[in-house]
Amino acid sequence: MTTIAIKERISSANSVTVQRMMDSDPFLVDVDLAGKRIPNLKSKMILHAGPPIEWEDMSGTLRGAILGAILLEKWADSIKEAEELVVLKKIEFDSCHNHSSVGPMAGVISPNMPVFVIKDRLSQNYAYTNFNEGLGKALRFGAYDEEVLTKLNWMRENLFKFLKIILQKLEKEKGGIGLKSIISQALQMGDECHNRNQAGTLLFLKEIMPYIFSYLDRKQANELFSFISSNNHFFLNLVMAASKCMADQAHNIEYSTIVTAIARNGTEVGIRISGLGDQWFTDKAPIPEGLYFPGYSSKDANPDIGDSTITETVGLGGAAMAASPSIVKFVGGTIKDIQEMTDRFRRITITQNKYYIIPFAEFEGTPTGIDIRKIMQSGLTPKANTGIAHKTPGIGQIGAGIVTLPIKPFKEALMSYARTYKI
Amino acid sequence: MTTIAIKERISSANSVTVQRMMDSDPFLVDVDLAGKRIPNLKSKMILHAGPPIEWEDMSGTLRGAILGAILLEKWADSIKEAEELVVLKKIEFDSCHNHSSVGPMAGVISPNMPVFVIKDRLSQNYAYTNFNEGLGKALRFGAYDEEVLTKLNWMRENLFKFLKIILQKLEKEKGGIGLKSIISQALQMGDECHNRNQAGTLLFLKEIMPYIFSYLDRKQANELFSFISSNNHFFLNLVMAASKCMADQAHNIEYSTIVTAIARNGTEVGIRISGLGDQWFTDKAPIPEGLYFPGYSSKDANPDIGDSTITETVGLGGAAMAASPSIVKFVGGTIKDIQEMTDRFRRITITQNKYYIIPFAEFEGTPTGIDIRKIMQSGLTPKANTGIAHKTPGIGQIGAGIVTLPIKPFKEALMSYARTYKI
Repeated sequence: MTTIAIKERISSANSVTVQRMMDSDPFLVDVDLAGKRIPNLKSKMILHAGPPIEWEDMSGTLRGAILGAILLEKWADSIKEAEELVVLKKIEFDSCHNHSSVGPMAGVISPNMPVFVIKDRLSQNYAYTNFNEGLGKALRFGAYDEEVLTKLNWMRENLFKFLKIILQKLEKEKGGIGLKSIISQALQMGDECHNRNQAGTLLFLKEIMPYIFSYLDRKQANELFSFISSNNHFFLNLVMAASKCMADQAHNIEYSTIVTAIARNGTEVGIRISGLGDQWFTDKAPIPEGLYFPGYSSKDANPDIGDSTITETVGLGGAAMAASPSIVKFVGGTIKDIQEMTDRFRRITITQNKYYIIPFAEFEGTPTGIDIRKIMQSGLTPKANTGIAHKTPGIGQIGAGIVTLPIKPFKEALMSYARTYKI
Repeated sequence: MTTIAIKERISSANSVTVQRMMDSDPFLVDVDLAGKRIPNLKSKMILHAGPPIEWEDMSGTLRGAILGAILLEKWADSIKEAEELVVLKKIEFDSCHNHSSVGPMAGVISPNMPVFVIKDRLSQNYAYTNFNEGLGKALRFGAYDEEVLTKLNWMRENLFKFLKIILQKLEKEKGGIGLKSIISQALQMGDECHNRNQAGTLLFLKEIMPYIFSYLDRKQANELFSFISSNNHFFLNLVMAASKCMADQAHNIEYSTIVTAIARNGTEVGIRISGLGDQWFTDKAPIPEGLYFPGYSSKDANPDIGDSTITETVGLGGAAMAASPSIVKFVGGTIKDIQEMTDRFRRITITQNKYYIIPFAEFEGTPTGIDIRKIMQSGLTPKANTGIAHKTPGIGQIGAGIVTLPIKPFKEALMSYARTYKI
């Protein structure tokens, strides 16, 4: 092919990529136990955020979460026993992304954890995510003490059951809950849908409310409502799974140079490219800059971790930052910073989202479809919102902030692209 | 007094005025029938928005709402009979503001209508407002057909009863619902709390939700939830009553030049000044500029009407416009326009609100404390958000928009001030 023909081929592939990404229509349709639903999740397997990684290379946060999951699964009775199992290779690990799944921070999903089941109405594909535990001491931040496990057990025993009752009715009556509609409303209400999900959580509650008081008894209703309404991040996991549907819909398109996954495992950050299959291009995960809880500093921070950057991949989070002025109180910075963050994404993306609109930017769509060519041309990488976990297993969240992705994975992806397509 | 002494006296009075306005702490504590609770509301009296007005001078919208209220009260069996009663002076009219009350648009409150009871924790004073009926055909827009009356009857029979059960429990357990906290959260979520109350309504629902499923049966719960959640303006009336508490707290302060009421009755717009007691300064009500529903234009519009400009009086609505980019889809204009609208208020107010913050304006407080001296110096009058009603009784809402208040009332208030304080 001539250079012009190749350029046209890429441009047309990318255009299909972002159309499919935007037109994906994820609905929350069910909850189930991970082991019963997630494809190829084996009985002694634990999924984690980011690209695949061996125990030896895992950060403190991820190790903490995995040890907690082993206790939760009752595969071991103590942390010591759990560590032995791991060292003896009795437990398999894999990346959530390899199982149509995503999880925030450590992103640990084990077979007996309940998960949300999201169905893309466009492709009929599914995505899965765990339930958000709330802020502070939580497994996803590497904490695993009694309090953390008690809450996770309650979530499996009760929250799961309550949501199951509600979602079965909801799916039957309305085909589930349309997540794209909630996300686009939330963007009008000051969420960027990664680190701020106040409106999304309220709008989600509004959807399930009639089912809460129609199908749960008073005690169940109170427990469910009080758990969800006290956690402004509850909706995050659902945005992530919706974003995973969108990104998967856009994945594996020949000649496409669009990024279809950004994920960190606490050691490495990795990306996937639509036209380059399931290969990860990685670099060392950076330490986020941000606001730390009292008593902590960047010295305590684990390197960047979590699948939540799937939101940035589809035009949310950092890309939608200009929609969310209040977030600077959580992650630091000024109003100018958030506008610059969205503008930065405009320089590395190929379109404006049709459904995700930023009112303050004169109703422009969020920058969508990160193109590795534009990253290499501009030298600018995506900036993402993120939570910050303590690097020592067992402690938990210590802040929230912004992370600038390294350029190496994009560079290597472009080189691999050139080899693959012989250009 | 010397000129300097007078200036200092005014400045200190105004400072007290806005402090009291901001520190007022309105809580929703109960619902009741208007006739049982509103001070000096006589058995054959109907309250209306804006300054006092005689039947002969009333616009079509207000007449329509009053005739509807007469039918609702069963004082007459037909519109013809209702008109006869009015012409024979069998019904008394008075301004809501003279009875610690406010109502949107026509603002009609009759003795058997249910009202919200709001208590100011600072002063222990009360304010009252009716329940919001929703958009479209509604009494407050001058409509009075069977559909309108059926809904109002349901509101009195059922909505009132359900809210009574909930609020009695809520008051006992938590002292009611703090409205200032909801309003300040809503400003972070894209409401300006006059014409956009999406977030406010959701946050209000969040507060009452545990009481809905704890104390109502399933049928009641569904009816109540479906009514409130399908009306994004439901919270407006509560913002207005909260604002009335704040404005009343700031009223009657000697030497104060701060505006403590702006209200329109569909014929006249009137203002009150803190240091000038209960006297209204008025001018002809203008026709709002805005977006009309299909089939209607400004030719069909009733002159500006409603007590809802009490929100602009305390730093919300037009003053908080820059917090609410999405509102331009409802009232027209651009993002620049909304920023200019808030900036215009900055030039005619004396402080930034301590509690009402605009994230997009680098977390500055909303412009609060409209000073008639600053209006006369700048020549700028407040711009307010507003709904637009058809001028013919019985039709209803035909649009929403922006109204620029005439300068005459402010000028006359300043002249009266000079006479009163002999300066």
